[in-house]
Amino acid sequence: MKKVAIVGLGLIGGSLALALKGFEDYEVVGVARRQATVDYALSHGVGDTATLDAVGALREADVTFLCMDPDQIVDYLSEHRGDFKPGSLVTDVCGIKGAIMEASKVLPPQVDFIGSHPMAGTEFSGIEHAETGMFRGAHYIMTLRESSTPEHADLLERMAKHMGFRDVVRTTPEEHDAIIAYTSQMMHIIAVSVCDDESLFTCKGFEGSSFRGCTRVAALDVDLWTQLFSHNAPALLRCLDTFIGHLQAYRETLADGDRGKLSEKLAWSADRKRQMDLPGPDLLQ
Amino acid sequence: MKKVAIVGLGLIGGSLALALKGFEDYEVVGVARRQATVDYALSHGVGDTATLDAVGALREADVTFLCMDPDQIVDYLSEHRGDFKPGSLVTDVCGIKGAIMEASKVLPPQVDFIGSHPMAGTEFSGIEHAETGMFRGAHYIMTLRESSTPEHADLLERMAKHMGFRDVVRTTPEEHDAIIAYTSQMMHIIAVSVCDDESLFTCKGFEGSSFRGCTRVAALDVDLWTQLFSHNAPALLRCLDTFIGHLQAYRETLADGDRGKLSEKLAWSADRKRQMDLPGPDLLQ
Repeated sequence: MKKVAIVGLGLIGGSLALALKGFEDYEVVGVARRQATVDYALSHGVGDTATLDAVGALREADVTFLCMDPDQIVDYLSEHRGDFKPGSLVTDVCGIKGAIMEASKVLPPQVDFIGSHPMAGTEFSGIEHAETGMFRGAHYIMTLRESSTPEHADLLERMAKHMGFRDVVRTTPEEHDAIIAYTSQMMHIIAVSVCDDESLFTCKGFEGSSFRGCTRVAALDVDLWTQLFSHNAPALLRCLDTFIGHLQAYRETLADGDRGKLSEKLAWSADRKRQMDLPGPDLLQ
Repeated sequence: MKKVAIVGLGLIGGSLALALKGFEDYEVVGVARRQATVDYALSHGVGDTATLDAVGALREADVTFLCMDPDQIVDYLSEHRGDFKPGSLVTDVCGIKGAIMEASKVLPPQVDFIGSHPMAGTEFSGIEHAETGMFRGAHYIMTLRESSTPEHADLLERMAKHMGFRDVVRTTPEEHDAIIAYTSQMMHIIAVSVCDDESLFTCKGFEGSSFRGCTRVAALDVDLWTQLFSHNAPALLRCLDTFIGHLQAYRETLADGDRGKLSEKLAWSADRKRQMDLPGPDLLQ
């Protein structure tokens, strides 16, 4: 039987360990740092088995998912560069790819690395919130090395399908980080900035689905997002400046008091949104 | 049997007509302008009955819900001020309250008016998207006249409970409009401004739940929102300026490159969000 090791059993790692169960002829081995997490995984069936012995697991794993913060992944790759099984595939689940692909260069040539970004998550963290259905309908993004084997890329694609992802998108680390600054990181900056309004608490009882939808992710994992934002600051700053410009354009149109102009501008934006047609797993309707 | 007239069978009016069915000893009468809408309502059980005869329905209604755009409501109140049943209650469903309460002054003294804002909706419009469960878990906001009777206020509260609203909040038109500029109107300006980014279409395949949650309402009803924004422009401009200020504060912290400061700032905002604790009917957990 082949083995896939999931290193780090938090929200995403735990969900991977649940969702990967039953994949082909692979045994899913969870690797945690705390006995309590191992016990939880074993008693709740998060993966087929779980262990504290990272080195032992890495040496036997045909595929290893690193499910940690960006900085931890960078350190882990360096620390364990000699522990991965020759010929195996190592991947991650991190929301930035440039820094991770760079860090993966410490691996010996006989270990392949493909960057992964499963675009899923909730505002919660920890194995207790892991769910087997976490990835249903979500996008799985992959960044390959030039030297990555087609067999490894295909294997990851099959794993993503097994876990319920809607599709697998291949891109470069640079493109990934530029787009994610807009579609994900900026959404988090918007959410926290909305919550900085001093009238936040007095508005309770007056919030509808638009407010909940926009601010849901403001209750973020501070350490994780500090790292993600910092690793991608130039791209994120460009997006924020563009966004602030678009907000100010609406502000000026509104201040002008010209209803015709406002209506035209809204029609243009609303039409762009309709063209996007983004059904998702997380919103009813 | 008493009668409640729902004038305007769109998304909200249609949902009211569905959700009010079975309320105490009231017959739910839908009033539409097009025969096709009446036919749809009759064949789909949207309300107990439906008619094109507005004047006939208003003369017999003990309660009338005006479910139209703000400008249409203002015109309708004026045009039909002599048609409402003496002693009856008229209310609306509009997202601004100042302009509506002002317009309601044309009613004769024997007709009571209470402003209503059921905080629900989707990005769709029209009776075909009406749903009996539209209001489950949502807030119902009321703005009373000084002369509004306690009986009428209680009646609306019971109706709101029957329709599944989580709670009923009473406030003044001024407070309503100031808060709603923040919790609802600004969320829509944010959503359309995000969609104005030129990379919108190239980001498909890279969007997660935060992007869908933030931009969902961008596909808005242009006429309706042009009116809502215009009627409440001063309050909305104040909110936008505050928000842009908070965005720029994050921008500067990010540009400084000081991770400690960024982490502190994120912790502060995230904690505010956690204190809000906003479960809602529209997001899966």
